[in-house]
Amino acid sequence: MAGAEVPDIVIGRLPIYLRALNLLYEAGQEFTSSQELGQKLGIGSAQIRKDLSHFGEFGKQGTGYEINYLREQISKILHVDRDWAVALVGFGDLGQAIAHYGGFASKGFHIEAIFDNDPAKIGQETNGKIVHDIKSLAQVINQLKIKMAIIAVPASVAQSVSDLLIEAGVKAILNYAPITLTVPEKIQVQYIDPVVHLQRMTYYLV
Amino acid sequence: MAGAEVPDIVIGRLPIYLRALNLLYEAGQEFTSSQELGQKLGIGSAQIRKDLSHFGEFGKQGTGYEINYLREQISKILHVDRDWAVALVGFGDLGQAIAHYGGFASKGFHIEAIFDNDPAKIGQETNGKIVHDIKSLAQVINQLKIKMAIIAVPASVAQSVSDLLIEAGVKAILNYAPITLTVPEKIQVQYIDPVVHLQRMTYYLV
Repeated sequence: MAGAEVPDIVIGRLPIYLRALNLLYEAGQEFTSSQELGQKLGIGSAQIRKDLSHFGEFGKQGTGYEINYLREQISKILHVDRDWAVALVGFGDLGQAIAHYGGFASKGFHIEAIFDNDPAKIGQETNGKIVHDIKSLAQVINQLKIKMAIIAVPASVAQSVSDLLIEAGVKAILNYAPITLTVPEKIQVQYIDPVVHLQRMTYYLV
Repeated sequence: MAGAEVPDIVIGRLPIYLRALNLLYEAGQEFTSSQELGQKLGIGSAQIRKDLSHFGEFGKQGTGYEINYLREQISKILHVDRDWAVALVGFGDLGQAIAHYGGFASKGFHIEAIFDNDPAKIGQETNGKIVHDIKSLAQVINQLKIKMAIIAVPASVAQSVSDLLIEAGVKAILNYAPITLTVPEKIQVQYIDPVVHLQRMTYYLV
């Protein structure tokens, strides 16, 4: 499978398809079509068929897609058919909300290590995990072989935290700090900044 | 200005440019270039020049962009040179974290009304705002002329909350519930689902 050649924008849509398929599956539905998915997602059905065709032939003329099979296949493609250990850096209001969010673990993303530099937070326990001193970041991440991390620190220190994480072996970062990170080419970074989303919408509002 | 004709993907990059310009401005820098911005953001300098050219001529050969001027212009283009009232629906863990997040107000987005359906939460006060019964949503949103809303409710009720908001006059929704919303064409929707971002990265990790 020539996975590396699939455009990143296609990869970006697969989790959206997977989410919709999971919802249909949980609702007890057995089959769906690119038309139905497209309508639910506001994406053209031809686009969906084309995206999926990068990875094989999943649908059947007439019956469409078997939901459980397709969600299993997409899970495999995305490598989310397994558990992932995630480090969380920053245990302020946002970090605490992230640590308590049930949506990660239910999808196989387990926060296995938490770090902060605040002596008042170091040593605190949450969901059975202790908040470590950020000074022990490299050691703990190495020991637990963690490849993914979530950054929930202020913008002013996010780049240095990112550098530390990458040096410790982290390959993928979900960054909540409102700053674009500079990282080596092979490192994956995704961003969550709600203000960016709000500002994109106000353009259309006047 | 033929704003409606600018591709949405260009609009989506403007908040990123604005964020970078604000950081440079706060650091005391006066001028920048498409090269410097591009390097910071991992976007080609030609792309940045082309994006900005949709809205006018902002740079000068030799000196580049005056940071304060450019950030003011982008703020005007995005309509974020003013304050926006935002409704928040859902006052669980996530909604509370959103209500307490300082990053919204500092960018002009003020949470002016909070709603929940839990009797234990209705009447609670946070940042001087009272949590309203969701039954009064239409009335309160009408009264305050709120056009933007943040959805922080479980996926199972997000669509019905979205319908309520739109009926009440909301034109733009930032949806934290892990579900794609079906909305009329003129309504803006943006999504925040951290799991989608993590799943996009694990594709590249094995």
